[in-house]
Order: sequence, then C-alpha cells, then structure tokens
Amino acid sequence: MIPFKLTDKLVAEIEQLIENQEGKKLTSLLEDYHYADIAEIINDLNEDEATYLIKLLDSDKTSDILTELDEDVREAILNNLSAKEIAGELDELDTDDAADIIAELPEEIVQEVISEIGDKEHAKDIVDLLRYDENSAGGLMAKELVKVNENWTVTRCVREMRSQAENVTRVHSIYVVDNDDKLKGRLSLKDLLTVSTETHIKEIYIPKVDSVNVTENPEEVAKIMSKYDLEAIPVIDEIGRLVGRITIDDIVDVIREEAEKDYQLAAGISQDVEADDSIWDLTRARLPWLILGLFGGLGAAAIMGGFEEMISKHAVLFFFTPLIAAMAGNVGVQSSAIIVQGLANDDFKGSISNRLIKEMLLALLNGVILAAVLLIFTWFWKGHFYTALAISISLVVVIVVAGIIGTFVPLFLHKRGIDPAIATGPFITTSNDIFGILIYFLIAKFVLGI
Amino acid sequence: MIPFKLTDKLVAEIEQLIENQEGKKLTSLLEDYHYADIAEIINDLNEDEATYLIKLLDSDKTSDILTELDEDVREAILNNLSAKEIAGELDELDTDDAADIIAELPEEIVQEVISEIGDKEHAKDIVDLLRYDENSAGGLMAKELVKVNENWTVTRCVREMRSQAENVTRVHSIYVVDNDDKLKGRLSLKDLLTVSTETHIKEIYIPKVDSVNVTENPEEVAKIMSKYDLEAIPVIDEIGRLVGRITIDDIVDVIREEAEKDYQLAAGISQDVEADDSIWDLTRARLPWLILGLFGGLGAAAIMGGFEEMISKHAVLFFFTPLIAAMAGNVGVQSSAIIVQGLANDDFKGSISNRLIKEMLLALLNGVILAAVLLIFTWFWKGHFYTALAISISLVVVIVVAGIIGTFVPLFLHKRGIDPAIATGPFITTSNDIFGILIYFLIAKFVLGI
Repeated sequence: MIPFKLTDKLVAEIEQLIENQEGKKLTSLLEDYHYADIAEIINDLNEDEATYLIKLLDSDKTSDILTELDEDVREAILNNLSAKEIAGELDELDTDDAADIIAELPEEIVQEVISEIGDKEHAKDIVDLLRYDENSAGGLMAKELVKVNENWTVTRCVREMRSQAENVTRVHSIYVVDNDDKLKGRLSLKDLLTVSTETHIKEIYIPKVDSVNVTENPEEVAKIMSKYDLEAIPVIDEIGRLVGRITIDDIVDVIREEAEKDYQLAAGISQDVEADDSIWDLTRARLPWLILGLFGGLGAAAIMGGFEEMISKHAVLFFFTPLIAAMAGNVGVQSSAIIVQGLANDDFKGSISNRLIKEMLLALLNGVILAAVLLIFTWFWKGHFYTALAISISLVVVIVVAGIIGTFVPLFLHKRGIDPAIATGPFITTSNDIFGILIYFLIAKFVLGI
Repeated sequence: MIPFKLTDKLVAEIEQLIENQEGKKLTSLLEDYHYADIAEIINDLNEDEATYLIKLLDSDKTSDILTELDEDVREAILNNLSAKEIAGELDELDTDDAADIIAELPEEIVQEVISEIGDKEHAKDIVDLLRYDENSAGGLMAKELVKVNENWTVTRCVREMRSQAENVTRVHSIYVVDNDDKLKGRLSLKDLLTVSTETHIKEIYIPKVDSVNVTENPEEVAKIMSKYDLEAIPVIDEIGRLVGRITIDDIVDVIREEAEKDYQLAAGISQDVEADDSIWDLTRARLPWLILGLFGGLGAAAIMGGFEEMISKHAVLFFFTPLIAAMAGNVGVQSSAIIVQGLANDDFKGSISNRLIKEMLLALLNGVILAAVLLIFTWFWKGHFYTALAISISLVVVIVVAGIIGTFVPLFLHKRGIDPAIATGPFITTSNDIFGILIYFLIAKFVLGI
C-alpha cells in the first residue's frame, strides 16, 4: 500500500474546490480517502472550510472523521453545527466515541443533542457512559458487545446474537450473563455450532473469562490486556454485572498517551502539548519547570557565595562547578528514569533498601571510573594534585548522592500515590544541582584544608 | 478479576515443592495460572528450578511461557534442554514466536533443532521467517493466516478455510490471492455465506485491502495500524505476494519498546536495560553519556579558565554559571523533546525555518520572563545593577540559543536518517552547557565593559 502523505498541493486543491463550492468534485475526490486521512486534511483547513466539508460529506464518514480530528478543530466545527446535525453524527458512532464527543460539548446544548439522537437505545447507552470518570475503565469502554443469557437455548442464542452483532463492528467474544446480567463466562462459537439446538447455554459456556472493574485505572487495563494478549476485555460493575467492553484499539491510544506524558514530564513539559500548539500553550507547559530551574540556580549561586573566600586561592574550583552540577543532574536523571520505567512496568523485585544499595554500588562504580579520568586530566592540566584530588573525590560522592536521590524520590512519590514521572527531568536535575554543588564545596574545603 | 500479584510467599511455596520434587502438586497448583503469570514466577527462580518446571509442565503451556520469559532466563533454560525438547516447544508456537526463539539459540544447534520439528510445513515457515531482518515487517509477521484463491468456488473456499483456520489463533481477515500468490483483496464472511456455492471468489471479494511491504519499518507499521484502527495487516513481498500477517498484539509491543527506548535515550541510557539488570549492564548503558558529560564539563571549565581575569572584580558572575548552564540545558531538552515527539507522530506542518522562528519566539518569551525575575532578585540581593543586568541579558540570549540548538539538532539528525531521540537528554544538555557558558561570559564581558 502507498501510505497517505498530506501534501500542501492536496490541501491547496481542496481549498480551491471549497472556494468554488464544487461539492460533487470534492465528494468524488475524497471518496477514496480513509476517514483518518481526511481528518488530517481537515486539521489543516480553516474553520469555515472544515465546516463546509463536514456538512458536505456523508454522515457515516464524517462521524468517523470527527473522532480523529484535533480537539480544537473538532470543537470549532461542532460550534457551527446544530444540535440535530451533531446528533446525526453521534447516531453513526459507537457509544464510547459518541460519549467522548458529548463530553466536549458546551453543557447548555448537551441535553438537546441527546434528545435529538434517533436511536433511543443508543442514546440511553451514551448517557450511561457519561456517568463514568474519563480516567477509568468505564470512561474507556463501549456498550457495544454481544452477550447471551445462560438460560437461553442455542436456537434463541443464535437468533439474539445475530441482531446484536449488527451493532458491533468486531465481535471478538460472546459473553454469557445470568438473569441478573452478571458476567458468568464466554462462549466458543465452535461449541455453539456443534451442539444440539435445544442445549442450554449454561451447559456449554466457558466459565473462565478475564474482566476488569468499571473503576479500574486505564493504565492497569492496558497492562492486563497487553500482558495476557487480549484483544477485548469485558467490564463489570461493583456487583459483577456486565456493563461494557474495552477493545485493543482504545488501549493502543492509552499506551501512546501514557508514554508521551512520561516523556514530556522527563523533559520538563508539564502539560499535554504538541509542536503545533500556540506559543502561549507551549509557554504555560514549559515555564513552570524553567522557573523551578531558575530558583535552583539562585540557590546554587547562594551556596557558592558562601564559599567566596576560597575564590582567591582556589579559583579553579569554581571552574568545575558546571561539571559537578551536570554530572549530578545526569546521574540523577538516569537513576530516576530506570525507576520510573520499572514502576510503570511492574517489574520490580526486592525491597527499596536493596534497590538503593544497588544504585549506590552502580553510582560508585561509575563515579570511580569518571573520577579517575577527571583526576588525570585535571592534574596534568592544572598541575596541582591536591586540587585535582579534591575535585575527583567530590565527584564520586556527588554521583553517589545523586544516584540515591534519583532512586529514592520516584520510589517515595510512588508509595505516596503520586505519579513518579513528575520527579524525573528538571525536578531531579535542579535538586541534584544544589546538593551536588554544596557537597562539592564542603569536600573541597575539607580536602584542601581551607 | 483479581489481578495476579507475584508474592514472595508464592515463590517460596513453589521453590519448596520443587525441592521436594512434588511434581503432581506443582502441576495442579499451576494449572489455573495464566502462562504469562507462570513466566513471572519462573523469572524469579534459579536456573535449575526453572528448568525443572519447564520440563514438568505440558508443552502447550511451556511454549507460551517461554515466549514471555526474560531473555536471560529463557536462554539459561534452553541451554538445559535437548534439541528435541526445544523443537517440541517450537511445534506448539506460532511461527513468529518460534522464529524469535530460534534467533536467540547458539548457531551450532539451530539446524538440529529445526530438523527435529515434527510438522515440516511449520518448520519451513519458521525457516522462511529467519531470513528477515528483525527490525522489519518481515521480522514481526507470522505465517499463520487464512488465504483463498480468487479462482476457487465458494465451496472449495469454505473447505480450505476450515483447515487453514485450525492453525490460526485469531482469523481477523480472509485474504484473497491470485494464482501467483499475489494479494488481491479480502473476503467478507457475510458475503461468502450469502452467495451461491458455485460462485467464484473473484466475483465477490473486496479489492481494497491495506497491506505493508515486508521491508517496512516496524514503527511505520505501528503507525499505519493504529491510525487506521487495524487489528491485523497482511504483509507482501517486493512483487506483491502475500507472505505473512502482523497482528495488533505485536504492534502493542513495538509501541511500548519504542516509547521505552526514546525515554531511556532522553534520560541518557543508551541500551535497552531494566532496573533488574546487572550492575555491569547498567554501567555499560549509562557510562558513555556520563563520559560525554564529563568532557562537556571539562570544556566548560576550560572556557571559564579563559575568563579568569574577571574573577577578582566580578566573582559573582562565576556563582551564576550553574544557573546559566541549567537553564540552557532545560530549555534545550524541552525544545528537542517536542521536536522528537512531533517527528515520531508525523504531526508536523510547515518548514524547518518556520519551526526555528517559532521556537525562537517561544524561547524569547520564556527568556524575557525569566530574565526579569532574575534581574529583580539579583539586583536586590547583590545590590549591583549592572552585574544583574549582564546576567539577565545573557540569560535571554542563552535561552534563545539553547532553544534553537534543541530544535535544530533533532531536525537535522532526522533529515540525515539518524534517530533524533539520540539528540535529547545528555547530548543537548552537554552542548548547551558549553555554548551557554561561553555566551554568558562573552556577554557579561561586553556589558560590564571589562
């Protein structure tokens, strides 16, 4: 397949057709494009052009396009649609996507939009989904699934399944419930087709089925589904009733978003932003960490000011502060990154103290190697062995302390229920800068006997 | 469902049972556990215990367990198995998993293992897969799929499909090929069941099907599958023949690994390591970046040495070098992270020069805000307006330059076909440290008229 590539030429062509109101040409041009590709095109158009296209194309296509658009573009387009038009789009969507769109609408029109949805069962399911926290299995699941009652016969089961399956894009599994709608197990299609039509489901279903609670964290759901290689998982409520189903495509998005968030936090970006966001959004995401760094730097300056009397005799010590600070920062970030990843993947064995001891040994090994290099370089360069020794000893100690801080802080935050990813990046580098410089001057003072 | 939690108690119980050679109790204890959970348990056992368990349990379970084990544990266990035993495990696995395991075996036993595989077709498929680069669609795909010839009748098609489906865990799609095995399209099960049994497949198949080339990069495959919400995608060779199929569970692993690699690179960890790896492995992954940082620090020290004559009159300038270096590093990491993510997600519009101008404006805005804070603080603290002014002006310039470097370097690497993620973290902080300090002292020298 030739992958779709958004070109300026294509966008210009479409803009021209929109300007000339050539609806027919547009429809036939866009007919062969996948909705995800059309969404990319529309993200590049202005509000009026985008609205024109959405109104022009068929609602079975535009509904899917809407789910793929950037949030701000979607918001602008929906603002230009009537409640009835929005409801028409929601009618075409699965309940989870429809609920996500409703959650973004201004409150005053939500009720009107819902009342305009043609299929009342569909509307009811969507309203059900609005109850759940966005950040839970309930907020992720769809109501579309195939379920059968354990008391049904095979004949009835097949009949009911056929009508349910019409609303479900991918069936994946047939879930079995009891009269109270409690999840009991799942059904193998093969078993269903090889037994007598009068058999009750109760006698043939598989009682083992993985499920998650409706309040479960999406990241936990992602872990379970990818660990057990599941393509869909049923969601149950507090008393075990089957309330929805999560499919793997939603989980792929959860994994991506989580990874991006962690990456941005490690880089000192505190909100979900993209390169194409406005300068103002990007500033708000970046400035807080820079201010933290600024105050860290002021703290470091204050510490160095406290050792001012050393400057006349040992100016060279001051030349090495950026080196010490950088090494403390780098080691701290390395250690915390390993811990944050280990916590995210649940692949930790052993206790916190073992972890700290290991990190200390690791830092010591790295520190001694680096200090040896530094000692030789500085000694030859500056010709003063004791200064070189003082700097090298400090480096070892600073690296070990930095490693311990980098290990301890994320573990501590995790224990307190705070996302440890927040502790990586600027937070660790800034605190390690300050500790590193303080330790450095104290040790240098001691070794040089000032 | 109650999620499985690996406890010391469970491991101790299993170790005790192994010591007492209580095979029956072990089998019945482990019967209800998922293979992914048993793999977690085995990761915690020593080599002999692990081998004992693998030999004890049924090969339809142990083969799946093997695919989930940590690589070093798996290697140790396979070392203790005969070629025949290994072949027995491979017989139970899908071709892609089997090929992955063979790729890890010592070369001298590969041929023997393959010759011991019972199902010769299966062995042939596995050998086919060994040809492909691990880092390509071919290295990711499995040979298991359901395909039918366009010239078959519906009757023959159903018969052949039935026998093929036995080897395929999840069917997802039925692919249609011509006499040369070239991929022509896919078949809807519904269409198949509603036409006359003598119809030829040619007349009813859907000619539109997404596919990827066998040499395609796994990350590109992941992008395509998640963009178009595909749960499986057929793989074709250079002349369009259907050679395999990639399923979404493999893609989930690709996305996870890619995210972890980028995260580690940003944190200055150059190899795929985990918190539980040996100190030696962790050192090898971390030391290179630290050495880079060390030489960066020596460079910074050399630059400061060049401004030594300023130290007597303006010692306070030296106190602010860690602040300048830290800010340069933070801004550089923020800029590069946004670019790396944008490149990974393909969501860039506009040219490189626009990108640089935007980043410059952004850095300028952040820089001016931070410089204003710094100016007020330093002025009040040190009481010397011109020194404070020199430091603040430098900060603005340093931040702008850092932002430009952070933007330019990953874009440049990407153009050259090098993974831009390598440019984040220590690389950017180190180079920005040096540039930042140099710019700082040059500007300070100019402003203070020294």
